Amino acid sequence: MPQLSPRVTDMNDQGSDGWEVFARARAMVEQGIPVTELTIGEHDIRTAPAILDAMHAAAHAGHTGYATVPGITPLRQAIATRVTQRTGVPTKVENVLVTPGGQAALFAAHLTTLQPGDAALYVDPYYVTYPGTLRACSARPVAIPTTAENSFFPTKGALDTAAQTPGAKTLLINTPNNPTGTIYPRAVLENIAQTCRDHDLWLISDEVYDTQTWEGDHLSPRALPGMAERTIVIGSMSKSHAMTGSRIGWIFAPPHVIEALSDLAVSTTYGVPGYIQDAALYALTQGPDLEQEIAEPFRRRRALALDVLARQGTVGVIPSQGAMYLMLDIRKTGLSGQDFANRLLDSHHIAVMPGESFGISAAGHLRIALTVNDDRLLVALETLCTFAQSLTRA
Amino acid sequence: MPQLSPRVTDMNDQGSDGWEVFARARAMVEQGIPVTELTIGEHDIRTAPAILDAMHAAAHAGHTGYATVPGITPLRQAIATRVTQRTGVPTKVENVLVTPGGQAALFAAHLTTLQPGDAALYVDPYYVTYPGTLRACSARPVAIPTTAENSFFPTKGALDTAAQTPGAKTLLINTPNNPTGTIYPRAVLENIAQTCRDHDLWLISDEVYDTQTWEGDHLSPRALPGMAERTIVIGSMSKSHAMTGSRIGWIFAPPHVIEALSDLAVSTTYGVPGYIQDAALYALTQGPDLEQEIAEPFRRRRALALDVLARQGTVGVIPSQGAMYLMLDIRKTGLSGQDFANRLLDSHHIAVMPGESFGISAAGHLRIALTVNDDRLLVALETLCTFAQSLTRA
Ligand SMILES: Cc1ncc(COP(=O)(O)O)c(C=O)c1O
Ligand SMILES: Cc1ncc(COP(=O)(O)O)c(C=O)c1O
Repeated sequence: MPQLSPRVTDMNDQGSDGWEVFARARAMVEQGIPVTELTIGEHDIRTAPAILDAMHAAAHAGHTGYATVPGITPLRQAIATRVTQRTGVPTKVENVLVTPGGQAALFAAHLTTLQPGDAALYVDPYYVTYPGTLRACSARPVAIPTTAENSFFPTKGALDTAAQTPGAKTLLINTPNNPTGTIYPRAVLENIAQTCRDHDLWLISDEVYDTQTWEGDHLSPRALPGMAERTIVIGSMSKSHAMTGSRIGWIFAPPHVIEALSDLAVSTTYGVPGYIQDAALYALTQGPDLEQEIAEPFRRRRALALDVLARQGTVGVIPSQGAMYLMLDIRKTGLSGQDFANRLLDSHHIAVMPGESFGISAAGHLRIALTVNDDRLLVALETLCTFAQSLTRA
Repeated sequence: MPQLSPRVTDMNDQGSDGWEVFARARAMVEQGIPVTELTIGEHDIRTAPAILDAMHAAAHAGHTGYATVPGITPLRQAIATRVTQRTGVPTKVENVLVTPGGQAALFAAHLTTLQPGDAALYVDPYYVTYPGTLRACSARPVAIPTTAENSFFPTKGALDTAAQTPGAKTLLINTPNNPTGTIYPRAVLENIAQTCRDHDLWLISDEVYDTQTWEGDHLSPRALPGMAERTIVIGSMSKSHAMTGSRIGWIFAPPHVIEALSDLAVSTTYGVPGYIQDAALYALTQGPDLEQEIAEPFRRRRALALDVLARQGTVGVIPSQGAMYLMLDIRKTGLSGQDFANRLLDSHHIAVMPGESFGISAAGHLRIALTVNDDRLLVALETLCTFAQSLTRA
């Protein structure tokens, strides 16, 4: 029997630890055991009925045939307008490709910029699909380590060391960040931009959480001098409009990159359903009010959670400015994130993600998704803190 | 500025000729000039309202979050049952992956079986995305030439010659065939199976037209001895259910291949919208009657078209058994398919695809899509034949 390709079978080879906590929690739920799941980056609300109605109207009006592969022009235009307004970088239809989700955009951006064997840089801790995505592109993933003490921001030194890897071609960053809940400040982005210019790297900037900013502003590195021509921005309606299941996102990049990405899309996806594009257009046309409404519960819960955490001294918290997560430091307990999460699940039926699931830099940490209602979240956090204290005293 | 990857920028390098006819026709339509377009493999009907209503109900019921990546179990089960019934090969949930369309399935199947630099075989003439898809996987596309005289079926000799290419790893076939409108008979499929077994190749079998069979039966090569373990079947709801724009298809393969493809899907697509999967489940549950209803216009138009063509002797026709196309032989006119198509468009405002668009084997031919209403189709075909005769006399 013929073999499969190592680029796929080895995708999860140096796989992250700690996903068994997630699997065990799901198994408990299936057995009828109530578990407070603070694991998943998905809203506790569903897509707004008005957006679904717009989709249905478009489908019934006949938008059910092959849609133009790079995306329908009005949607590309709406996305271009939105990014121009938000980032100040003039953006046109030719800069935009519609994709079936942010994940598909991440994959396409890397497949289009990397050759097999090239080195692809990314920052640790990272969104869990990153290294597998790079391996699927036959690239060599190179993690840039960070420390909790520096808010998990990459330092100029660490960036330059990684950029000196032979064959380095791309650098993938994510701000507002999953899993850490930080937003990269201007100084960090300027270092990143400098490294990209000095080492002639593509910058792939994952900005799917751009509407979830609680403190300070999200600055797109595409707006920095000399960066528009080498930056590929990943966006998505998943988080901003609670449309995770609709699989719709986008890429902004220089026009020749969009042309190459469109050619690729003919072979990888053949575009995005027209009626979903119409629904996305409707949703974007509602403007920032809808986006703020959808971000609001996370803003509120983050504030509530920080209050609880301020009332104790065992569990630390990484300064949080954005995204639907908090990163907690449980190193005082002497346990790994994984051991802590497993014991918390067993004794209190609360599921959180061990930091180790997101790379070695986040060992001894936990990621909390702010995706359950306020009351459950507060009870769970209080329980978690008491549990941590009991471990410290033991 | 950093470079883009040749696997994408060279996708269309040895690109097919003749697509400018298509582009010119579209431009004429946009200028308000009426053109009879016999170019595109897309139904002249839209997706059935009942399917769209099922989708809307699922979306409103809340199936708008991330759906399980390999596909929801009831849909995988319905697909498995359908293929078991149609092909006689026992197929289970573990054999099925839901994909966002047949094209995404073709890409994923090749990325998962080929290593960069491997040779990937396909039959010429071919569906237009094939060579680009193979290049995007960093493979070397190897065309297997065929002749009109042999109904564009690959011969055992041509198959074995191609299979001896160093690094040959996959063979891609398509039956019922686009662009030729033929169905591979058992003897041809047995040769293909023999070549795959002898040379240890994966067989990737594109069966997206499996419901469009006008004469004889479609036999899936997965049903041949020793082939289930090395065959990856591509299916789609695009043609069978007039759901082209919904981007939903599937793969059947051995379970370990489906597992690898699922891992890949986490990074390339993150699955298919749940409400589209529910709509597909509804559509499949309607059974073969709906599929026959959707295929019916093409069956009828093919018969009408063959009648018109039988009444003249200039334009030949490749024996047609399936799919929504007819392949016409215009070599008696002495023109290339491309020249003929361009002149037909200019003088009679009828757009057809030059055979050359689908590879060198189909030079001197035209592909007619049976995708306009019966009357327009008949007038267009009569005009085309008269035009061919006038060229022959000239
Ligand atoms: C950092 C990051 N990037 C990309 C994605 C993918 O989002 P989607 O494919 O739903 O747009 C996610 C989803 O959780 C994410 O957290
Ligand atoms: C032979 C063949 N394979 C695959 C496809 C892709 O179909 P889809 O991606 O719409 O399922 C087509 C579409 O025309 C086709 O003709």
